[in-house]
Amino acid sequence: MKSHATEAEIQAVVRMVEDLDYNAHIIRGVERTVVACVGDERGEKHQLTHLESVAGVERVMPVVRSFKLASREVRPEGSRIKVGNAEIGGPRITVIAGPCAVESEAQIEAAADAVKAAGAHALRGGAFKPRTSPYSFQGMEEEGLVLLERAGRRVGLPVVTEIMDPHDIDLVAEHSDMLQVGARNAQNFSLLRRLGRIKKPVLLKRGMSMKLEEFMMAAEYILSEGNPNVVLCERGIRTFETATRNTLDLNAVPLLKAWTHLPVIVDPSHGTGIYSLVAPMALAAIAAGADGLLIEVHPTPESALSDGPQQLKPSRFADLMKALKPLAEAVGRTL
Amino acid sequence: MKSHATEAEIQAVVRMVEDLDYNAHIIRGVERTVVACVGDERGEKHQLTHLESVAGVERVMPVVRSFKLASREVRPEGSRIKVGNAEIGGPRITVIAGPCAVESEAQIEAAADAVKAAGAHALRGGAFKPRTSPYSFQGMEEEGLVLLERAGRRVGLPVVTEIMDPHDIDLVAEHSDMLQVGARNAQNFSLLRRLGRIKKPVLLKRGMSMKLEEFMMAAEYILSEGNPNVVLCERGIRTFETATRNTLDLNAVPLLKAWTHLPVIVDPSHGTGIYSLVAPMALAAIAAGADGLLIEVHPTPESALSDGPQQLKPSRFADLMKALKPLAEAVGRTL
Amino acid sequence: MKSHATEAEIQAVVRMVEDLDYNAHIIRGVERTVVACVGDERGEKHQLTHLESVAGVERVMPVVRSFKLASREVRPEGSRIKVGNAEIGGPRITVIAGPCAVESEAQIEAAADAVKAAGAHALRGGAFKPRTSPYSFQGMEEEGLVLLERAGRRVGLPVVTEIMDPHDIDLVAEHSDMLQVGARNAQNFSLLRRLGRIKKPVLLKRGMSMKLEEFMMAAEYILSEGNPNVVLCERGIRTFETATRNTLDLNAVPLLKAWTHLPVIVDPSHGTGIYSLVAPMALAAIAAGADGLLIEVHPTPESALSDGPQQLKPSRFADLMKALKPLAEAVGRTL
Amino acid sequence: MKSHATEAEIQAVVRMVEDLDYNAHIIRGVERTVVACVGDERGEKHQLTHLESVAGVERVMPVVRSFKLASREVRPEGSRIKVGNAEIGGPRITVIAGPCAVESEAQIEAAADAVKAAGAHALRGGAFKPRTSPYSFQGMEEEGLVLLERAGRRVGLPVVTEIMDPHDIDLVAEHSDMLQVGARNAQNFSLLRRLGRIKKPVLLKRGMSMKLEEFMMAAEYILSEGNPNVVLCERGIRTFETATRNTLDLNAVPLLKAWTHLPVIVDPSHGTGIYSLVAPMALAAIAAGADGLLIEVHPTPESALSDGPQQLKPSRFADLMKALKPLAEAVGRTL
Repeated sequence: MKSHATEAEIQAVVRMVEDLDYNAHIIRGVERTVVACVGDERGEKHQLTHLESVAGVERVMPVVRSFKLASREVRPEGSRIKVGNAEIGGPRITVIAGPCAVESEAQIEAAADAVKAAGAHALRGGAFKPRTSPYSFQGMEEEGLVLLERAGRRVGLPVVTEIMDPHDIDLVAEHSDMLQVGARNAQNFSLLRRLGRIKKPVLLKRGMSMKLEEFMMAAEYILSEGNPNVVLCERGIRTFETATRNTLDLNAVPLLKAWTHLPVIVDPSHGTGIYSLVAPMALAAIAAGADGLLIEVHPTPESALSDGPQQLKPSRFADLMKALKPLAEAVGRTL
Repeated sequence: MKSHATEAEIQAVVRMVEDLDYNAHIIRGVERTVVACVGDERGEKHQLTHLESVAGVERVMPVVRSFKLASREVRPEGSRIKVGNAEIGGPRITVIAGPCAVESEAQIEAAADAVKAAGAHALRGGAFKPRTSPYSFQGMEEEGLVLLERAGRRVGLPVVTEIMDPHDIDLVAEHSDMLQVGARNAQNFSLLRRLGRIKKPVLLKRGMSMKLEEFMMAAEYILSEGNPNVVLCERGIRTFETATRNTLDLNAVPLLKAWTHLPVIVDPSHGTGIYSLVAPMALAAIAAGADGLLIEVHPTPESALSDGPQQLKPSRFADLMKALKPLAEAVGRTL
Repeated sequence: MKSHATEAEIQAVVRMVEDLDYNAHIIRGVERTVVACVGDERGEKHQLTHLESVAGVERVMPVVRSFKLASREVRPEGSRIKVGNAEIGGPRITVIAGPCAVESEAQIEAAADAVKAAGAHALRGGAFKPRTSPYSFQGMEEEGLVLLERAGRRVGLPVVTEIMDPHDIDLVAEHSDMLQVGARNAQNFSLLRRLGRIKKPVLLKRGMSMKLEEFMMAAEYILSEGNPNVVLCERGIRTFETATRNTLDLNAVPLLKAWTHLPVIVDPSHGTGIYSLVAPMALAAIAAGADGLLIEVHPTPESALSDGPQQLKPSRFADLMKALKPLAEAVGRTL
Repeated sequence: MKSHATEAEIQAVVRMVEDLDYNAHIIRGVERTVVACVGDERGEKHQLTHLESVAGVERVMPVVRSFKLASREVRPEGSRIKVGNAEIGGPRITVIAGPCAVESEAQIEAAADAVKAAGAHALRGGAFKPRTSPYSFQGMEEEGLVLLERAGRRVGLPVVTEIMDPHDIDLVAEHSDMLQVGARNAQNFSLLRRLGRIKKPVLLKRGMSMKLEEFMMAAEYILSEGNPNVVLCERGIRTFETATRNTLDLNAVPLLKAWTHLPVIVDPSHGTGIYSLVAPMALAAIAAGADGLLIEVHPTPESALSDGPQQLKPSRFADLMKALKPLAEAVGRTL
């Protein structure tokens, strides 16, 4: 309550709180009075927040976080998510690699060979691309999906690709082993809800300006519709720093691992936007406790149709995989 | 080029640039050499940006902005967008007001009466609500649309409501005069593209972490598909400041007005999240040159099912409308 | 407390809280227990915050804000600060104008004439300049102070200038009517404390990443040492947006006016960094309730030694002053 | 130049540029004309930037970064900075540990024993504390310095402590082996300049909203006055995320290491603000290429007078040191 709230205002708030099926406790402080509300607020948070517009009320401060199915308390041992013949969330680090976009049969086949040879566990590639400009390359769409699937099958790697439009869910699910939701759609609740109704695993990227609690709630949208197969991906947030494309927030890794049973992986390619930072930040992500990595690898980055500056050449990716092995072992994991 | 780039590297870049149909000019500086690329980069930006992964290249710096249909140069006098019997973008300030969400027939009818009586030009109300938590009230959906339309028709105001899912476009367009795209969907390119194929005006809100240039490009998605009826809405960005729900970025108003012919309105309700800040920031928005306002008004904010703390009571809204009139006149507009 | 906190942990926390001279109230919720602490925490905040490292504790949430001398409750009618023959905080809008830096006698005299002629109430000019690079122009120092003072005296305007080094306080105070603390020194507590021991008014700018509550606390440093003459200045915060130099946060104006009795002015020159945005944002600031403006005016901006792009030419400044008058009247102020 | 700039405007700009001793090259593009300026802009950057206020000019885009003494090109092999009997910047990771603040003789002696026993290379402790509130504990000042020095000497560790006020430089330098500049003073240029005139090494922390290029320029202030002994410290930046106290920006580590020869260390205690995140982020920092760590360790964190929630207990710190050893080796370093 405000410091000059009257007794009548306090009592009015107490009555409102009780009408909402909470118990109200009045705590009279040196300077102001607090009305503590006890009850199950999950799903009804707004009912208390709106009290901020009531006379005499200064602030409504929620105490309990509102995610439940994603909470680590639900499954303290952590979830392991199967993606084709790979698994994310166990002691082994999972590396998903491939080009930003599928550009041609030759390109995706070369990429598949390169990432398989270096030891990656899954192949990524975009067929539907979210681009800031409508005039940029938007992806090969269905043709790209088919090429990606074929390349993955040939080298024996499951494939991961982005879904943007709810209309495309069946198509994308048919051709891939895991559906990725990009940062720009991280709070596209219609899409999340529909992905909750399929069984294929979902790779959910953190939005550019998404608080970790909101990230958990976005996962909760998928879980609450019945799909338990969600992997979270930190991919950098938007800050004032312009030297890097995004600010990779590795604090998110140990914090999310403490909050949720869902696996957490890191995308250092988007998280930095600069190929020379990908390897050090990939190592850092594993040191921080990540369960895996999402790395952009392109046979010839200088001719890529999107995100060239952040994609690794096959040789650099192979070097990174070699460097990852002793690092993973130093933190008690395997590769 | 990097400061130690070799002549061979410079010549290789020149050849690559020319292969991309640009003319290359070499400028040899005191410390480093710059290769200036002249040509029409619109739509092909990636082809130059990817040069950042080429040997000897330090940075690729684009000089020209990449929006075209939204550019003010296209229509220097500015666009006026018809929304039912209202118009946005002329000398008159347009005020769109109503509750955050349609909650019941009684509530939306009371809101319609209140905003009409105070002089608003359009009625807003959400039927599909994007909520951070899947457990929060998600809107009355189709029933809400019907109630909103009926209330608007009765009081003679056009209605504005949010669209979240591409599957709902026909339904929402049938019942409303303007479709609003919320901040979380501001880069949902599938949705934007589909809205470009209808004729109903679109109210496009700025994303929480969207640069103004990206905001322009999002509008460009709609325009490039054939729908010229787009109104931009500044609604606050996400910053480190936590005293307000968002940081209303009024710098955006004169800057967007200089860049684009599209009308620009401001939402001080979401932009502040605090009802006592709505009136001063509404006045400030008009002083900064905004073409209109989007204001949340609820008959009884303390019982609202969403966003209670930022919704105005009818009496406060009427006071704001009275205060707006002399202010609009002081900057050469009318209300 | 954490959801699995034991009764022993709860009781241990209660004892700790009581040892710190607070009263502890245990509130047992559906999911977790809250220990409410009642007492005077001002100045001792750390003693409770540190409980976050105690077993079983999840979070410490302070309820009361910790500023006192700056609080509006101390002087609900608001403070008026005298600066030479000007006053900030009354019904009249106060405009402080002049060049970013004093560059020569001719320049500051021409600036003084221009701002006086247009109706400004005080003259600003930097003699000690905080520059990002040590190789940039750092100001004329003492010579600049003398030139500024002389120009102000001649046209009858009080002068405002920046103080950067505690060693210079006596010197700067001798030659000026108000000492400005720049954004980069806004949490230079040694400087603030020393400014609290003089009587000259202090113009305290908000730091680039300073929360409003921290801004209040910085003012509290000056007030708590005995100098009541503090004026707050919103000058833009650092965000992800790069189209403007800073993001002018006008939400700060009505919020600070509600929290504190100190006057609040706005600097649209630094807040935007673009001269064409200065006038619309100056109008917006007054509409939002600011008590005054700080405007950079230079006789010939294109030859300025610092911040050229944001300084107004005298003719544009005169136009702004003309536009301000009806705007001020529209919100019940005078100019 | 703007797209509609006239030939006369272009020629006027060319003359201005040449008057500033640059060579001007005119590049005529499809849509607009660019005037490339070749010359040595270091230290004179403002002279070009101000052209943004000239008729017909759209933007001034600097191509060259303006730090020189700090640039890696100056010393490609990297600098090693001696701090008493420790060294920062070589193959060995350097760990500086100790309490946030010196609170008593018993506390700092216990801390010194604990960090020495666990294998730290230097002892830290604040005697002058920058606190947001003037009513919080401000440090033991000179008495604290003496206690810190004595504890360090006894256990054979060099000591690091913060300097806030230029008046205290001699005093602090007398009692310590390295002077730390805190985040809030990172652009206190008076202080930086004065620290450039001593010989003791300086630990420069990144400001909360400081771009990496500005961080380099702050180091340049110290270097340019003659003190080459500067170590940079990433300690987290301020972003929208509130789950952690700051967002530790580990991207800064490989980027700074590429830009500068100065050593780079990381402070995961302030960077996270949560003790359980300190160890994973310390490991991540080393994996990303940091030369050392700054870790807050307190004998009894739950009774700390400042920053309790982020300080490690001695046993946790010892565990961290054990975990660091194999990790350092996995990236080719030693501890």
